[in-house]
Amino acid sequence: MSPFRASAGFTSAWEHFGVTVADGVATVTLDRPEKLNALTFEVYADLRDLVAELPHRGDAKVLVLRGTGRGFCSGGDVEEIIGALRAMKPVELLEFTRLTGAVVKALRECPLPVVASVNGVAAGAGAVLALASDFRLLDQKASFAFLFTRVGLAGADMGSAYLLPRLIGLGRATELLILGDKVDAKRAEWLGLGTTVDDLPAATEALARRLADGPALAYSTTKVLLTREQDMDLGASIELEAITQALLMKSDDHAEFYDAWKAGVSPVWRGK
Amino acid sequence: MSPFRASAGFTSAWEHFGVTVADGVATVTLDRPEKLNALTFEVYADLRDLVAELPHRGDAKVLVLRGTGRGFCSGGDVEEIIGALRAMKPVELLEFTRLTGAVVKALRECPLPVVASVNGVAAGAGAVLALASDFRLLDQKASFAFLFTRVGLAGADMGSAYLLPRLIGLGRATELLILGDKVDAKRAEWLGLGTTVDDLPAATEALARRLADGPALAYSTTKVLLTREQDMDLGASIELEAITQALLMKSDDHAEFYDAWKAGVSPVWRGK
Amino acid sequence: MSPFRASAGFTSAWEHFGVTVADGVATVTLDRPEKLNALTFEVYADLRDLVAELPHRGDAKVLVLRGTGRGFCSGGDVEEIIGALRAMKPVELLEFTRLTGAVVKALRECPLPVVASVNGVAAGAGAVLALASDFRLLDQKASFAFLFTRVGLAGADMGSAYLLPRLIGLGRATELLILGDKVDAKRAEWLGLGTTVDDLPAATEALARRLADGPALAYSTTKVLLTREQDMDLGASIELEAITQALLMKSDDHAEFYDAWKAGVSPVWRGK
Repeated sequence: MSPFRASAGFTSAWEHFGVTVADGVATVTLDRPEKLNALTFEVYADLRDLVAELPHRGDAKVLVLRGTGRGFCSGGDVEEIIGALRAMKPVELLEFTRLTGAVVKALRECPLPVVASVNGVAAGAGAVLALASDFRLLDQKASFAFLFTRVGLAGADMGSAYLLPRLIGLGRATELLILGDKVDAKRAEWLGLGTTVDDLPAATEALARRLADGPALAYSTTKVLLTREQDMDLGASIELEAITQALLMKSDDHAEFYDAWKAGVSPVWRGK
Repeated sequence: MSPFRASAGFTSAWEHFGVTVADGVATVTLDRPEKLNALTFEVYADLRDLVAELPHRGDAKVLVLRGTGRGFCSGGDVEEIIGALRAMKPVELLEFTRLTGAVVKALRECPLPVVASVNGVAAGAGAVLALASDFRLLDQKASFAFLFTRVGLAGADMGSAYLLPRLIGLGRATELLILGDKVDAKRAEWLGLGTTVDDLPAATEALARRLADGPALAYSTTKVLLTREQDMDLGASIELEAITQALLMKSDDHAEFYDAWKAGVSPVWRGK
Repeated sequence: MSPFRASAGFTSAWEHFGVTVADGVATVTLDRPEKLNALTFEVYADLRDLVAELPHRGDAKVLVLRGTGRGFCSGGDVEEIIGALRAMKPVELLEFTRLTGAVVKALRECPLPVVASVNGVAAGAGAVLALASDFRLLDQKASFAFLFTRVGLAGADMGSAYLLPRLIGLGRATELLILGDKVDAKRAEWLGLGTTVDDLPAATEALARRLADGPALAYSTTKVLLTREQDMDLGASIELEAITQALLMKSDDHAEFYDAWKAGVSPVWRGK
């Protein structure tokens, strides 16, 4: 557990999706398969809170996002979300759109690597959740669709117009976000949107284990600096990396590497 | 027409290229086929003004750029532009280079999606006009050449050193801008510079129709945010998207989507 | 030689790698083949100083980085660098990490185009040296490995978390920097990390000659603006390009192009 907790306790039960933490791997399972795991207000809010709280627990080194059933996440539920939004005033709408954006901001700023295990359709907000993850493992049946314009909304949602061009380039991102067309797994991999695998559960487990058992502080700082340096200039980025690396050179894991190397054995990582 | 016009009238005739506006589609046709549609001072200036004026008219939802004959646009005319520049003082040269840059700035900031229909060679400034568009449809005979260094000038021209790395990555952009080599349509598509099509006029018409008939406000805000978020950080981008999306949730088109969805019919977009 | 030299003299001998300057081409040859050209403290420091000094000499138009033997550069020497770092205090570690970052900053800010001729493994800091170059020519046996996390350090080192996403996109860069897996030449080319060639020495010589014999001021300003505009917004980039291009329009090489074009002969570039 973080030594810097204050008055707030940990959430005792996450009511709106499944959560497990085992052997360093936290797994969130979106669990409304009959709706292709469409999001509700509560799912968004629980995601925001869980991603903020998780790094403080100390028992998770990696977060996996997955869905049950055929889909990964079909985005905001048309009935439960869009229907309800129709009745809202601007101040309430803004509270909702800031909630959805807060989930993405939390995922990008989370010091744990995040793996999206995309088993099927990732549409709308579901596609952006995958986009905000660090790794995207794709089942052969996975697909992306940034279909916001198809409901009359901006294709720029939850940071998609920031993130997608930085993953696949401005030209291709413009096409996907304006038109909202579906992208299958093969094309997604080609674009740089993820890695297709034959056995998604096994590949997810293997990557999560690797991230949980490896030098977690090294992984964490790499992710955090990748996030921050998207918004920094060359000189500041080099300085940030110099200071960070000097800190890491004092870490147990780096010492462990050197000792193991001298002894001719494999290092045993502690994540510290 | 925009309700916020002031004293300035609309330009009555564009003398330096063809302009049509029909059914929501504005089309600019570069029309000096014997010179592969090389640009003159007047073409640059008319492009700058047209792109600024077009969104105020209210009758165009999308702008198509195309060329007559074999070429799309071969860039600044060696005789009429480079020859004339040889006699100019620094203050005049700067006025010219700022004019050319103003065209690109106008295209990127234009709230309408811009489609470059690249029928043949797009060279020098012609390549940058395509680069500054949102969509690039490429005939099989289309090609790009950022050939500025071949005339002894910087490969960074009209924003090319800003735009190209953001479309195809810094490494490949460096190669194309420093060396100025030609890129054929197949390679251009592979790099993320556009989409090759078999029947360019038909594909251009289909895309323009889709953009004109669709939820134009959604398309427009997507394009505008894509442009701006290239220069914004993650947190500010997410906030901008939250505020924008809350506004769009009060749009007619979003209401239309929901009503149509409930009624089980297709939405009829109004672009508002 | 630069007309703006002050008291400092040029370095008379580079003791820690081979340096030649001939016909406008400066070549640095990392020369510890028995260690796959692993870096030592002295190599880093000499690289930093050479890259700063070289543009002032006036006899080099392009810098080539290459390695002798089977490897390009295997990064910091485990024995000589990591071993020594184990005994250092934070202030000394920071001096070292700033030195390594200074090499990358110098390469990116160097007004000469830099060609990495990658003959074999480019690992750790060696991979970042290639990344900081403008061109990467890859032998079929070349490979990249950003293996920092494998020694318990951050994958963000010497600017790698700034540079790699800007070359190959954030998603793929995240994978390579966090996991530290090896990338072979074919995959590297596919990702946009370089160009594979059949005969590396011949291809390196040809590219270096082309850059040395061509319009060097045009090449130089293109490189410098590409570097700077990664950190600039659209409007400022367009303005910078307008001012730069107006300057270049007064260059000898641009005049030479026009005169040669009128005379129907090939231009003879002077790089001024």
